[in-house]
Amino acid sequence: MTDTASTAPPPAIVLVRPQLGENIGKAARAMLNFGLTDLRLVSPRDGWPNPAAGPAASGADLVLERARVFETVADAVADCAHVYATTVRKRGVTKPVVTPEEAARAMRAEPGRSAWLFGPERSGLETDDVALARTILTVPINPEFGSLNLAQAVILCAYEWSKSQELTQPPQVELDPPAPQAELEGMIAQLEGMLEASGYFFPPDRVPATKRTLRTLLTKPGWSSQEVRTFRGVLSALGGAKKPKP
Amino acid sequence: MTDTASTAPPPAIVLVRPQLGENIGKAARAMLNFGLTDLRLVSPRDGWPNPAAGPAASGADLVLERARVFETVADAVADCAHVYATTVRKRGVTKPVVTPEEAARAMRAEPGRSAWLFGPERSGLETDDVALARTILTVPINPEFGSLNLAQAVILCAYEWSKSQELTQPPQVELDPPAPQAELEGMIAQLEGMLEASGYFFPPDRVPATKRTLRTLLTKPGWSSQEVRTFRGVLSALGGAKKPKP
Repeated sequence: MTDTASTAPPPAIVLVRPQLGENIGKAARAMLNFGLTDLRLVSPRDGWPNPAAGPAASGADLVLERARVFETVADAVADCAHVYATTVRKRGVTKPVVTPEEAARAMRAEPGRSAWLFGPERSGLETDDVALARTILTVPINPEFGSLNLAQAVILCAYEWSKSQELTQPPQVELDPPAPQAELEGMIAQLEGMLEASGYFFPPDRVPATKRTLRTLLTKPGWSSQEVRTFRGVLSALGGAKKPKP
Repeated sequence: MTDTASTAPPPAIVLVRPQLGENIGKAARAMLNFGLTDLRLVSPRDGWPNPAAGPAASGADLVLERARVFETVADAVADCAHVYATTVRKRGVTKPVVTPEEAARAMRAEPGRSAWLFGPERSGLETDDVALARTILTVPINPEFGSLNLAQAVILCAYEWSKSQELTQPPQVELDPPAPQAELEGMIAQLEGMLEASGYFFPPDRVPATKRTLRTLLTKPGWSSQEVRTFRGVLSALGGAKKPKP
């Protein structure tokens, strides 16, 4: 790491509903090889701590000791400005798709903490997990044989991030980072509450898809904390509107 | 693969005296993920074929089926023009040291087949094995925690090689272009009209700055025509809200 290295903190690795303790240990080992230590677990299937994790970590104990457990993905990324959802499968989600290399480059260019979401071993991330992210991260892979396990996906991302640590970059324009996820969630909750009151969510069977559409819409801008506050002020004003325009 | 891709054949992965069949299987899986199929085994400890390899390969059977066994490293790389010895430890050997990225770049630039040597799980390559290589390949790693296993070392090298192959580009999501400016103006006008009615624009001397702030907020996302329509639907619903949230 050099003096000109990014001021952005190292990314958080978020394992969403991981199944085997062994794989959590392997992911920790993969992380520490490339200097990452911020491990977050969302509802690990077998609880935490898990006795199978330690042996698989091969000495990366400090990563396991510092690991934090969260109930939801939203909780786990509440302090993160940039959320990447890793998936190798195409999904019907219209978000930008980047490689680990491109993600690592973007993380250097933008201030604010990043989180990388990795799904459960068998099934991968659910659509609702992906909806939380602004960007999809896909490892370019053999189209006829895509079979990355969890630790392998983690290590490729960690490896790419570590490379970016040694690059020298031109001076960066100071941009406000996107608001932390928790602020985004508050804004989305406010809007959803208002829309529920207005009868917007109809018919009922379309509600989950409609909410995802709204979430994608509001995640796309990467609004800063100030911008989120402005938008919430707009909503509050509209909520109290006396003479709404048709 | 395109016309501009390297004409050099894909590299051979040479596992030197591998110990566990499971690790051979994992290496095969790692290879095939990135399109490599030329696996060569030098004196595998437990012979070959090894029944533990298949399950660990998770479907990369064709790599195992085509694997060739050799008695010596020299035999295994007899047809190779460029031999790289992978090691994470410094050795008293005066040969060029490159990263996987640099090795992949060199392989694209030079004709002739390359071989990448990987040592046994515990001990790594012997000095005599390294002596056969023209170049040392080292994965840049956390100086305080270097603990790559065999399959992880293989996958990082295979991944870097695959970057030269266009077949492994991630599928690009076709993102809709931002809506034409006229649609954006219509959306902004709708919101401004609603905010005027709600008394949002106060005090009067701040109105131009406030409108600029809103315009910046709504221009930033680059919403598509569909997204602009969705947002206008949201505004219409809020405008007709019966029970506005405080």
